[in-house]
Amino acid sequence: MKNYRLFTPGPIDIPEVVLRATAQKCIYHREEKFRWLLEEISDYLKKLIRCSNRVYLLTSSGTGAMEAAAVNLLSSSDRVVVAVCGKFGERWLELCKTYGFNPIVIRAEYGKSVGPEAIENVLKDGPAVIFTTLTETSTGALNDIKNFGAITRRYDSYLVVDGVAGVGADECYLDDYQIDVLVGASQKALMAPPGISFVALSKRAQEKIGKSDLPRYYFNLEAYERFLQNGQTPYTPAITILYGLKKGLQMIMKTGIKNNFIKHKKMAEYVRDRIRKMGLELLPENPSNALTVIKMPPEINSSDIIKKIKEDYGILFANGQGELKGKILRIGHMGNYNIAKLSRVINILERYLKRR
Amino acid sequence: MKNYRLFTPGPIDIPEVVLRATAQKCIYHREEKFRWLLEEISDYLKKLIRCSNRVYLLTSSGTGAMEAAAVNLLSSSDRVVVAVCGKFGERWLELCKTYGFNPIVIRAEYGKSVGPEAIENVLKDGPAVIFTTLTETSTGALNDIKNFGAITRRYDSYLVVDGVAGVGADECYLDDYQIDVLVGASQKALMAPPGISFVALSKRAQEKIGKSDLPRYYFNLEAYERFLQNGQTPYTPAITILYGLKKGLQMIMKTGIKNNFIKHKKMAEYVRDRIRKMGLELLPENPSNALTVIKMPPEINSSDIIKKIKEDYGILFANGQGELKGKILRIGHMGNYNIAKLSRVINILERYLKRR
Repeated sequence: MKNYRLFTPGPIDIPEVVLRATAQKCIYHREEKFRWLLEEISDYLKKLIRCSNRVYLLTSSGTGAMEAAAVNLLSSSDRVVVAVCGKFGERWLELCKTYGFNPIVIRAEYGKSVGPEAIENVLKDGPAVIFTTLTETSTGALNDIKNFGAITRRYDSYLVVDGVAGVGADECYLDDYQIDVLVGASQKALMAPPGISFVALSKRAQEKIGKSDLPRYYFNLEAYERFLQNGQTPYTPAITILYGLKKGLQMIMKTGIKNNFIKHKKMAEYVRDRIRKMGLELLPENPSNALTVIKMPPEINSSDIIKKIKEDYGILFANGQGELKGKILRIGHMGNYNIAKLSRVINILERYLKRR
Repeated sequence: MKNYRLFTPGPIDIPEVVLRATAQKCIYHREEKFRWLLEEISDYLKKLIRCSNRVYLLTSSGTGAMEAAAVNLLSSSDRVVVAVCGKFGERWLELCKTYGFNPIVIRAEYGKSVGPEAIENVLKDGPAVIFTTLTETSTGALNDIKNFGAITRRYDSYLVVDGVAGVGADECYLDDYQIDVLVGASQKALMAPPGISFVALSKRAQEKIGKSDLPRYYFNLEAYERFLQNGQTPYTPAITILYGLKKGLQMIMKTGIKNNFIKHKKMAEYVRDRIRKMGLELLPENPSNALTVIKMPPEINSSDIIKKIKEDYGILFANGQGELKGKILRIGHMGNYNIAKLSRVINILERYLKRR
């Protein structure tokens, strides 16, 4: 059975050189060579997200890093706000509820981004820890994290951002935007296979972690900090995925961080332009550069189109999730894509949409 | 800088075919092909550990699966017993303490296995959930899990076993030994890179999970159960490591499960025999077949020997951890090793020990 070419918003089509890098023999994670690997990846990430403090690499999917962010930063007396504009925002809410919090919820409807004024209104009543999403993969919406950061800091609050789908495709800088915790993962715009996630911390977030009273073990960032002093992780890491992540980040460094963001912007603008010219609407008002989410005309079910294009061309787009299933079509273009490739798959999509 | 050949007790020297399998493009984890991958791995694992109920595959190191076992099985009113004979037994203790338990500790000194009568004595006072280790990698000791299982069931208790270092090298069968939870990971005798762990459950353990009152999100096995119904995992899994795990398990199936255990027994007996002939002592009384742990004579520091052999031959043995550092030398021989390879490295070790 043939493999599909992925145009899904993660996992992505991984570059061959990255896959080859992951096929190298493992080094021992208690050896000096591992320290170099960890430091190199950490340095690249810090440059990419402009973080002058700490990045911890975890062996988990992005959701594991989200849990690490919540259980390390929060204390049971904290006021918690979750700013939701889709499925991944809902995940923050579920996570905080699991640990006994009853968060104040700011909710934007599907396709909209969270309004900064809604955040400010809540913070006027008192400081809080705010959880939100950079790029909401379920709708393609991008949040104005820079604005959120400025507001958060003004009200002596903390900002936690899920950047899993956005980091590397949508500009987002921890120091500059005054983010306290930024979470990401290996398998999106960083171009590696899934298996490694990261938690980046501001200095004030790191200080707050020392006071947290929630239980955690595998995701206890204080253990990660202790081991980092010796260039190690507390538990056996996914070493070969780290090889891949290093290679993916090296590719971004070679392109140049700024150029890489420009490349994503150009790809996204190209796709959006083609979609509009086909007479279709985008779901998000303020779209991310990591993926494009298209509203289907009422007479078309995206499930059918996706299935047909998969069968006929071996190309895989993503469907909507939950109540958006069948109503939208999502095209991922983070990492290893280019306009020529995107042009071909959109030509195909266009033919199928016209045929109906 | 050259790569060392690993004779450490995990990560191991991964077979080339396994590494190549991990370098394949990712499938989408919400597609039918992923279901086949998950089912195939799960079927192999169930055969290997004789589990007729459930195996959940997690993206984490073995410690993540240990946490999953604890936070899903335990309820805050449970009586908890931890049977410790080394560093990984201590990990269960730390984990249970993190979640507010004050476990009864049964402790065997380094090199000894846990005595079944000690477990029985504790259970006579009332049922409990018992946490222990199959193969204690820090000392090379093997515990008599079959006996523990029989005692545990007699006192209407639950047995949770860390099999990370043992599964695939030391015989251990969930159904037959009456184990309730067995935890393992990809990077030991299953011959894949690190990044995937698993939790196997008896039916009664699965029922108990439904009553647990501890907080958990990423490791919530009830979510894994829901997604398993559709052949999926709740969060993006380490897909390429799953490819490797499938290949490693296929190699074991090709060898034959029984033959694979015999192969490990023969390798272990060969190494132990050579060590004894060199006039050296083993640390464990009841040694595992996954690794051999040698006591150093008082005049020799294993740190020096390990460093020299690494520099001169590019061969890496493992040191002791904590208070055993410098006092023992650990040789891993799980998975992709054979007597010819082991013979060569022990010849080298012998020369270095004589020279001093």
